[in-house]
Amino acid sequence: MQIQKKDKVLFFGDSITQAGVKPGGYISLMKDRLPEQELIGAGIGGNKVYDLFLRLEDDVLSKKPDIVFIYVGVNDVWHKQSSQTGTDPDKFIAFYTALIKKMQAAGIKIIVCTPAVIGERTDFSNAQDGDLNRYSQIIRDLASKYGCGLVDLRKAFLEYNQKNNPENKESGILTTDRVHLNPAGNQLVADLMLKALSGK
Amino acid sequence: MQIQKKDKVLFFGDSITQAGVKPGGYISLMKDRLPEQELIGAGIGGNKVYDLFLRLEDDVLSKKPDIVFIYVGVNDVWHKQSSQTGTDPDKFIAFYTALIKKMQAAGIKIIVCTPAVIGERTDFSNAQDGDLNRYSQIIRDLASKYGCGLVDLRKAFLEYNQKNNPENKESGILTTDRVHLNPAGNQLVADLMLKALSGK
Amino acid sequence: MQIQKKDKVLFFGDSITQAGVKPGGYISLMKDRLPEQELIGAGIGGNKVYDLFLRLEDDVLSKKPDIVFIYVGVNDVWHKQSSQTGTDPDKFIAFYTALIKKMQAAGIKIIVCTPAVIGERTDFSNAQDGDLNRYSQIIRDLASKYGCGLVDLRKAFLEYNQKNNPENKESGILTTDRVHLNPAGNQLVADLMLKALSGK
Amino acid sequence: MQIQKKDKVLFFGDSITQAGVKPGGYISLMKDRLPEQELIGAGIGGNKVYDLFLRLEDDVLSKKPDIVFIYVGVNDVWHKQSSQTGTDPDKFIAFYTALIKKMQAAGIKIIVCTPAVIGERTDFSNAQDGDLNRYSQIIRDLASKYGCGLVDLRKAFLEYNQKNNPENKESGILTTDRVHLNPAGNQLVADLMLKALSGK
Repeated sequence: MQIQKKDKVLFFGDSITQAGVKPGGYISLMKDRLPEQELIGAGIGGNKVYDLFLRLEDDVLSKKPDIVFIYVGVNDVWHKQSSQTGTDPDKFIAFYTALIKKMQAAGIKIIVCTPAVIGERTDFSNAQDGDLNRYSQIIRDLASKYGCGLVDLRKAFLEYNQKNNPENKESGILTTDRVHLNPAGNQLVADLMLKALSGK
Repeated sequence: MQIQKKDKVLFFGDSITQAGVKPGGYISLMKDRLPEQELIGAGIGGNKVYDLFLRLEDDVLSKKPDIVFIYVGVNDVWHKQSSQTGTDPDKFIAFYTALIKKMQAAGIKIIVCTPAVIGERTDFSNAQDGDLNRYSQIIRDLASKYGCGLVDLRKAFLEYNQKNNPENKESGILTTDRVHLNPAGNQLVADLMLKALSGK
Repeated sequence: MQIQKKDKVLFFGDSITQAGVKPGGYISLMKDRLPEQELIGAGIGGNKVYDLFLRLEDDVLSKKPDIVFIYVGVNDVWHKQSSQTGTDPDKFIAFYTALIKKMQAAGIKIIVCTPAVIGERTDFSNAQDGDLNRYSQIIRDLASKYGCGLVDLRKAFLEYNQKNNPENKESGILTTDRVHLNPAGNQLVADLMLKALSGK
Repeated sequence: MQIQKKDKVLFFGDSITQAGVKPGGYISLMKDRLPEQELIGAGIGGNKVYDLFLRLEDDVLSKKPDIVFIYVGVNDVWHKQSSQTGTDPDKFIAFYTALIKKMQAAGIKIIVCTPAVIGERTDFSNAQDGDLNRYSQIIRDLASKYGCGLVDLRKAFLEYNQKNNPENKESGILTTDRVHLNPAGNQLVADLMLKALSGK
C-alpha cells in the first residue's frame, strides 16, 4: 500500500486507539509525519469486534476514508476473563469478515492489526497468551484471504520484549498497565503503521 | 395480534427452537392447530442475539414472513458460564433493538419471548436466575417500547414450577436437562404462543 | 447462645469484616455495647472459605476465643465472575464443615452468617442472586446440622431492601458499592449479631 | 532419588492419575518395570490442589508411602474456563506448599510433576497455555525451594509435540481429548517417572 497526498486515514478500534489521538498517542505521532493527510481516530473504550460492526456505518463509512486501520481483539479475549463476555472465535471471524467486506465494497483499503499484548511477560505465562496467539492467527489469515495490509503488533511486541524485558516484567516496557501503550509503545505502533503506509 | 389465514409465521431462535420442529416439538404442536398457516422453524443450536442478527437477511427477511417469534437469550446468559462468551446487557439491547427495527421496517409483526429457565429450582437458587431475570426485563421493556407482542415464558415457567415442582428439582418438570423442553414444556410454550396469535 | 462477661468474641471473615473494626464498622458498633467482652476482628480482604481454613490455626485457634462468627461466602461466589476462581459448592461445604469441626473440637461456640448481597436490586436480577441463595442455603443447612447459631444476613438484607429500596437501586441502601457496608448496613449487621449473642 | 526394593510409591492426582491404574495406564506400565515395589494409585477425577489437601491424611499419610508423585494442576487452570472455579496462583502456592511440608514432615520423598497440556497445538495458541506455563513455573520453583524431584511433563510434552505434531493438531498425539493420555502419552509419562525414580 502506498499512501497518497490528501488521503483520509481512519483508525478503528478500542481504548488503545481512543488514547491514540491524545498528545503523545500513536495517531498524534503519525500526524506529525503525515501533515498533508487527514488522520481520524475512531476508537471507543471496551469495544469488541461486534461493537465495531454496530457502528461501522456511522463512524467509518459515512466519513468516506481512503484507508482504515482495524485494531481490535484485546477485549474480545480479555472480556472472557473480566466479565465472561468475550467473543467466540467463530463469531470473531464472522464479524471481522463482515467488516472487511463492507469496507472493501465501499472502496476502502484496509490494514488489519493483531492484538499486541495482555501482559508483557516473555516466558509465555501471561494468562491470555494462548488466546491472543489464536485470534492473531485468525487476523493474519483474514488479511491473506482478503488482500488486506497487516501490521503484526503481536509479533512485534513479543520481539521487542524479548530484547528489552530481561526481567520478565508484566508491564512497563511497551505498556503502562499490561495493555495500554506507554511512550515506547506508542512510538513502536506509529513506526509500524507508518511503514505499512509507505508501501515498503 | 390476530393471526390471519395464509399467514406465514417464523420462529427465530436457538436450540430450543431448532428442536421445536421435531415431532412433539412446540412448533409441531402449533402446526396441528394452525393447518392453514405456514409455520417455519429457524432455530440454530447455540445462537445468541448477535447470531440472529448475522443471519437475519438469509433466514428471515428473505422468507417474507408475516409474523416472527424471537425466542433468544438463554445462550447470551449461559455462555458466560460455559465459555466466557456471553453477551453484555448493553450489547444484548443493541442487537435486539436492531433485529426489531429491521424486521419492523420490512413490515413484519414481532412477538418476543423471554428466556424461560436454566434450571427449574423454585427457591431462586439456580446460578443464572439473576441474569435471566435481568435479560427478561430487558426484553419486556423492548416489547413495550417498540409495540411488539410478548410471550413471557420466564414468568410462566416460574409459576408452573411453583405449582408443580414441590421438591425443588433442577429439571424434569418442563425441561429434560434444565434448559430444553420436555413434552409438558413444549405444550406450555405452544399454548402460550397460540394464545398470543389469537389476539386474546 | 448467651454471651458471658469476659467472653472473647472473634469475627472471622473477608473484607467486610476487615472493615468492621474501623470507626463506624459493625464490630466497633458492637464494642460500644459489649464493653466487658473482648472483640477481635479477623477479616482479610478477598478471603474465601479455604483462605479461612488455611489461617484457622494462626488467626483463630491460637487466640482461644469463646465465640466465633464465621462471615464468608461473598468472594466464593463473586470470584467466579471476577477471576474465574470461585468455590465449587461441594468444596464450599467441605471446607466450611472442616472449619466448624475444628473449632467445635476446640470448644468454641460458632455463629455462622449467610452472605448478604452482591447488588441490592430487589427484583432478583442481580447476577449473583442465584448463587448467593444457593450458598446461603448451604450455610443454613450446616448451622442446623452442627448446632451452630445463625445470623441470616441474606434474608435480613432482602427484607430491608424490599421495604427501603423502592427504586430498585444497585447500591446505597445498605452498601456503598453493592457489597461493602454503609452506616445503615453496619448498624443492621451489628444489631443482628448482638441479638444472636443475647440468646433471644 | 534412587528407588529401593520394597519401596511403596503413591501417585497423588486427578483423573489422569485415576486412569493411570487401568490396563495400559502409566502406573500399570510402571508396575511392569517395578515388580518388587508397591505402586498405589490415588487419583480422583476433577481434583484440584486443595482437593488433594483435603484428602491428604486419608489417602496418603495413612498409607505410609516412601515416595509420592504429586501430579496436579490441570483442573486448577481448566476449571477457570469450565466452571469459574479455578485456583488463584497464590492459593495454588499455599496449598501446594502445605502438601509438601506435611509429607516431608512424615518423611516422604516427593516428586512433583508439571501439568502437561490442555490442547496439543504447538503454536502456543491453546487457550490455557499461558496459565499452564505460569502454574508449571510455580511447581518448578517449589521443587527447587523444597528439594523435591521434578518430572517436567509440560516441557516434555511440548518437545514431543514439536517433533511429532507437524499439523498442529489439538489432540491425538499424546492425548485422546486434549488432556487425557493415549497410549503414547501413558508411555511417555511412565518413562519419565521411571527415570526420576532411577536416580539418573
